[in-house]
Amino acid sequence: MSAQNELEFKGYAMTDPSAWSTLSVTSFQPKTFGPDDVEIAITHCGVCGSDLHTLTGGWGQSHLPLVVGHEIVGKVTRVGANVKSLKAGDRAGVGAQVGSCLECRACNDNYENYCPKMIHTYNHEYADGVITQGGYATGIRVHERFVFPIPDAVESRHAASMLCAGVTVYSPLKEYGAGPGKKVGVIGIGGLGHYAILFAKAMGAEVYAFTRGTAKAEDAKKMGADHCIDTTVDGYWKGLGMTFDILISTVDKFPAGVSIREFLGMLYVHGKFISVGLPDVDQPLPAIHPFDVMNNGSLVGGSHIGSKEDMLEMLALAAEKGVKPWIQELPMKDAGKALEGVQAGKVRYRYVLQQDIAPVA
Amino acid sequence: MSAQNELEFKGYAMTDPSAWSTLSVTSFQPKTFGPDDVEIAITHCGVCGSDLHTLTGGWGQSHLPLVVGHEIVGKVTRVGANVKSLKAGDRAGVGAQVGSCLECRACNDNYENYCPKMIHTYNHEYADGVITQGGYATGIRVHERFVFPIPDAVESRHAASMLCAGVTVYSPLKEYGAGPGKKVGVIGIGGLGHYAILFAKAMGAEVYAFTRGTAKAEDAKKMGADHCIDTTVDGYWKGLGMTFDILISTVDKFPAGVSIREFLGMLYVHGKFISVGLPDVDQPLPAIHPFDVMNNGSLVGGSHIGSKEDMLEMLALAAEKGVKPWIQELPMKDAGKALEGVQAGKVRYRYVLQQDIAPVA
Repeated sequence: MSAQNELEFKGYAMTDPSAWSTLSVTSFQPKTFGPDDVEIAITHCGVCGSDLHTLTGGWGQSHLPLVVGHEIVGKVTRVGANVKSLKAGDRAGVGAQVGSCLECRACNDNYENYCPKMIHTYNHEYADGVITQGGYATGIRVHERFVFPIPDAVESRHAASMLCAGVTVYSPLKEYGAGPGKKVGVIGIGGLGHYAILFAKAMGAEVYAFTRGTAKAEDAKKMGADHCIDTTVDGYWKGLGMTFDILISTVDKFPAGVSIREFLGMLYVHGKFISVGLPDVDQPLPAIHPFDVMNNGSLVGGSHIGSKEDMLEMLALAAEKGVKPWIQELPMKDAGKALEGVQAGKVRYRYVLQQDIAPVA
Repeated sequence: MSAQNELEFKGYAMTDPSAWSTLSVTSFQPKTFGPDDVEIAITHCGVCGSDLHTLTGGWGQSHLPLVVGHEIVGKVTRVGANVKSLKAGDRAGVGAQVGSCLECRACNDNYENYCPKMIHTYNHEYADGVITQGGYATGIRVHERFVFPIPDAVESRHAASMLCAGVTVYSPLKEYGAGPGKKVGVIGIGGLGHYAILFAKAMGAEVYAFTRGTAKAEDAKKMGADHCIDTTVDGYWKGLGMTFDILISTVDKFPAGVSIREFLGMLYVHGKFISVGLPDVDQPLPAIHPFDVMNNGSLVGGSHIGSKEDMLEMLALAAEKGVKPWIQELPMKDAGKALEGVQAGKVRYRYVLQQDIAPVA
């Protein structure tokens, strides 16, 4: 592993926002290695909608040059003196978060993913001013709290996109009790939605997939959905009143004139409609009226990635149940093509990039 | 008790919606007495905002003549052959619900208050076509499931308004875990809000009252609020980020331009903003954006009255902790005046009507 101790940090970076999908290999400075840090030689990185939102400027300006990617798996090359859970040579993953205050109520409650001082995996800033850089790169240094051992039974290419897309739906499914005897509806079958079907099914719930049209119906059934419902059919909600314990909405933006009232009416008592979609800042949810949530005491909420606890449980479940995401693999140099495929809605259902700058032994 | 067996059903009824606050004594036909029914000679009835919404037509048309009132306490005069929990002479109460299917998932889960076939205490219809009539009356016949024994330690005049206003806030406080170590915010200090303070405090939570201006601050403190916050002060939310486990909003209609984003930002991880306000049907909640509920995984929801389980627990808590609502008592003939006081926002904090048609021995 000694060669790996001299990991050179390079990644596919955006240097010009007007050509956001042209990413070129660029060296960058990682954070200063600390006693709690784990250094990882990256083998795989998933391509997330967040990468696209960031590169295209939809969520604001970027620090340049910028390497995105936060569904990272690789081999540990070096660990700090305090690190207990990992050692050089282990496979490990990193998701969309690389830091938090580790002191607040949320951090102490194992909700570090809601820490107000969270640090994102890329395009964010450490206390010392170092800009975080993501996983379309040779390597990353991360505090142990945000690094997750990958179980032997889960292949790296499968684990990668679980670390953002997977946990984003796993966390609310777990929090709100998905399991045997429960009914879960998944609205929108893209990268997040396909994971919601896979994990809700692995957790033992009865799963309904809601999708516009029938193009993805067969796929949804193969993923494990027990029922598939075309929401372009008038009255699609009939017979489903007060049925669901959880609805996971992966919809970024509801089409104009579409209400979520019909979905709310399908929730059982105290059922939850959880939006994990990420619209632009000027696109609120369709308006809700207190009456919409009064008749069943239902709730409309959000969720943000997942905690370490969520990650470890999700990976253990994936190992136990053999959960395998539907992915398309590309060499890392094709990151721009993958991002364009995400933008065009072509991905089925997640792109995963393979290391090609400095292949890991 | 034999005289009471011949209970004559009369109440203060609206006969002309254009003169909605002029209520006159009118005889009415109660439901056919069945083996599961309890007949009650009414001694007290609270005056609820729902009574006003119904009489003024805000929630649609009324069956005429109509007797409203669904915060009912009295003495049991007669019980059906199947009734086990009550006997003639007991004090008993009835809230805003007098029926449900008793067969569905919600009814079987002790959520009969969310049964899609629920029957409201007044202005609703039994299966046999009899129109339900409320508590501004001499008596009522109700299925045992919807009748609640009043503990000896709770006076009838205090119990009455607990049966709608009280349980409407008690139910979500209990469902979402109000208790020691939890922080509860109450938004709007009227009839519902004053009960939310009283019960959240009785349950052991730390209570914040949010009110526009300072007119009710002193009262809120006397009710038990640990803190009182004037929401007309700019930046009133500062220092309260991620603080609350539960926010109970009793606001009917948020003023134009007011957002609930600031309240959502004050919720702790997975905290709940529960609206128990009852606006007109064309008044939705201020728009929310997924980002508003993503940063803390918070939820916005509703709640509807309470179940029998909630009622019995609430009454036991009131008995144990000596919870006493702040009420203004009037003879039942002054129901119209009380309703006008509710409409004008003058009530401090709940009107309770005393029987005066046929006083109960």
